[in-house]
Formats: sequence, structure tokens, C-alpha cells
Amino acid sequence: MIKLYWCPQTRAIRALWLMEETGLAYERVLIDIRDPDKPRDPDFAKASPMGKVPALSDGAVHLADSAAIGLYIADRYPQTGLAPAVDDPKRGDYLYWMVYTPGVIEPAMGEKISGTAANKVSHGWGDFDTMINVMENGVKNGPWLLGDTFTAADVMIGSSVLFLKRFGLLPESDILDTYAERCLARPALQKAMEFEAGS
Amino acid sequence: MIKLYWCPQTRAIRALWLMEETGLAYERVLIDIRDPDKPRDPDFAKASPMGKVPALSDGAVHLADSAAIGLYIADRYPQTGLAPAVDDPKRGDYLYWMVYTPGVIEPAMGEKISGTAANKVSHGWGDFDTMINVMENGVKNGPWLLGDTFTAADVMIGSSVLFLKRFGLLPESDILDTYAERCLARPALQKAMEFEAGS
Repeated sequence: MIKLYWCPQTRAIRALWLMEETGLAYERVLIDIRDPDKPRDPDFAKASPMGKVPALSDGAVHLADSAAIGLYIADRYPQTGLAPAVDDPKRGDYLYWMVYTPGVIEPAMGEKISGTAANKVSHGWGDFDTMINVMENGVKNGPWLLGDTFTAADVMIGSSVLFLKRFGLLPESDILDTYAERCLARPALQKAMEFEAGS
Repeated sequence: MIKLYWCPQTRAIRALWLMEETGLAYERVLIDIRDPDKPRDPDFAKASPMGKVPALSDGAVHLADSAAIGLYIADRYPQTGLAPAVDDPKRGDYLYWMVYTPGVIEPAMGEKISGTAANKVSHGWGDFDTMINVMENGVKNGPWLLGDTFTAADVMIGSSVLFLKRFGLLPESDILDTYAERCLARPALQKAMEFEAGS
């Protein structure tokens, strides 16, 4: 059985949402990352060398990071329909958006929160405003990043838009607001939010 | 023919190294990212919404970001042997390390350079020292991250170790020094460095 290591009020909700989209059976294992002295499931250390959530074990496969987890699950269980096939022309956009959250959105958010700004040419994440514009262009034709089909990339980008909103960092954007509402209407995200609320 | 958009003295050397490892035919297309007014190959904008290198076009597939490019190429051309198969137990480690550079190393390096430090619990990249320790543990059994087989993940992590060294940010580490030398001994990396030098 797939084990998903998570903790409420963290970015682990991404992986909860993803697993709810798959329809696969999985077990939720609560890891209190705010208390490092609590005993952990012994497989957790194999999955998450930094002790972070989300992380996942699937038999002999162990990994952490929501983008990596999404990439794994969507390809390993193609019946979930959450990724274009390896030879699909949309595979390029899919992979670009899968890496966009950890590689661009998160560091740009971190800079925005701390009030710093790196060299936007030398750093992969450019700058905050460009990061927002590129996302807007990505979802403006919709309904989803790759068109008609919802994929794991929408879990990544959709959850990022929702985090930006929650932290008060999302500039006014009808395009991103509409996309966020479309995400919030998904039963799988609603289920993930119920797990958070009830944990 | 695969087109690789690159620019010397940037992180695009990762993708050059990767393409040299594959043995695939590809065309190098120089993009002067420091001069935004220079005319660009028209496919470049499709591949790189932020105007960053490396980026890649492969027929109808367009994408940017070295991790995304590595993920694409290694799965699309399995004869290159640069990724474990989707059902290989090592797939978890592979994906974790593929995302580790954009999601952990680069933002932690950015903080180190700017002298800032984010909340290490709430940010995915933790802190600089943990980032280094986790890499050391990843390569200490070697010779490569996944054991005997060199993969695209070694291009990502190996190039990151070399960047950390070049910027004077790598702490003393016999393990990472040895790994860096092992990477520098690869003919594909030497070829990529020759392209940089001769460009």
C-alpha cells in the first residue's frame, strides 16, 4: 500500500490533493514536522532525507518533494490519466510546469516574503512579477494548463496559486482567480482540505 | 533534430553535458541572454516562457529548465540509459535528485549568496548545511547517486557541486570533492566545457 507522509498546514496538501485525484488506495501517515522528537515511521527517513513532508513510500520506492511525488505517481500509474505519455507533444509543457513550482514559484515567493531580490538573470527563478505573468499565460486558454485535460501539473500550479492567495501575495488577476476557483471546485481538493480540517 | 538553446557561462552547461552524455544528434543554438534585443530563434519563445536557458525543442515538444529537460530526454530516449524505468525501485531516488537542484540547491545557494535565511521549516529547501549533508549522504556510497549507473540525476547534482565549488561556496568535503572529480573525468562534460571555451 502507498504511504503518504504528511502534516496539516504545510505544502503536503499538494500531495494529498494529488492522491485524492488518483483514486488509488493509500494510507495517510501523520508526521509532526514541528516536533522533531516525536517517533517517526521508520520508512519516513528513507523517503525524506531532509525530514520534510510530503514524502511517499510505495513498496521499495521512497521519495520526497511534491513535484517528484507527482512525477512518480502519474507515470507509475498511467491509468490515473494525470500525465501525458512520454511521446505526447504535451510532455514538454507538462514537465516544465511540474518543475515550475519548486524551481520558480517557491524561491520567488521566498524572496517576496523576505523582501530580498536575487539577480534575476543569474537565478533560475527570474523575478516575482515575471513568475506571475508566465503562470497567467499558462492558464489563460484553460481550462487547465495542458488544455482540456487536468494533470498533476495543475495540482502543483493550482496549489501554488492558492498558497499565494492565502499569503496575500497574489496580485489582482482575473485569470488566476478563475483558475483557483476551478481548482477549488474539484472534489479531490475538497477532500484533501477536509482531511486537513479534521486532522 | 533536437535544438538546445544555450548561452556560455550560464547553468545551460548542464544541458550541454546531458546532451553529450546521450550520444543523440542535436543542434546547439546560441541565445545571448545578456542582450534581450538580439533576435532569437522563433521556437525559443515556445520553449522558454521566461526567456531563460537552457531550453530545448524536439519537433513539437518545447521546454525549458535543466531538470525538466533531463526528465524529458532520459525518458523519451531510454536507449541513452540515463534514467531508471518507471517501475524500477530506484525511480524514487532518481526523481528526488532530479528535483533537488532547482528545488533545494539553487534557492539555498541564492540565500547563501545574499546572506539571507528563510524559515527552514516552512521552506522546501531547508537550510544550506542540511542541503550539503543530504548531498554528501547521497553520493557517499557511489560511484553515482543511484549506485553503479550514471544517470541524468548525476548531471544535475554533479553540475551543482561544480557550481558551488566555482562560487567558493562548497564547504570542505572529501566526499563531494571526489564526486566532482569523477564527474570532471567524464568525456561528455569535457566536451561541454570545450564548447563553452570555444564559443
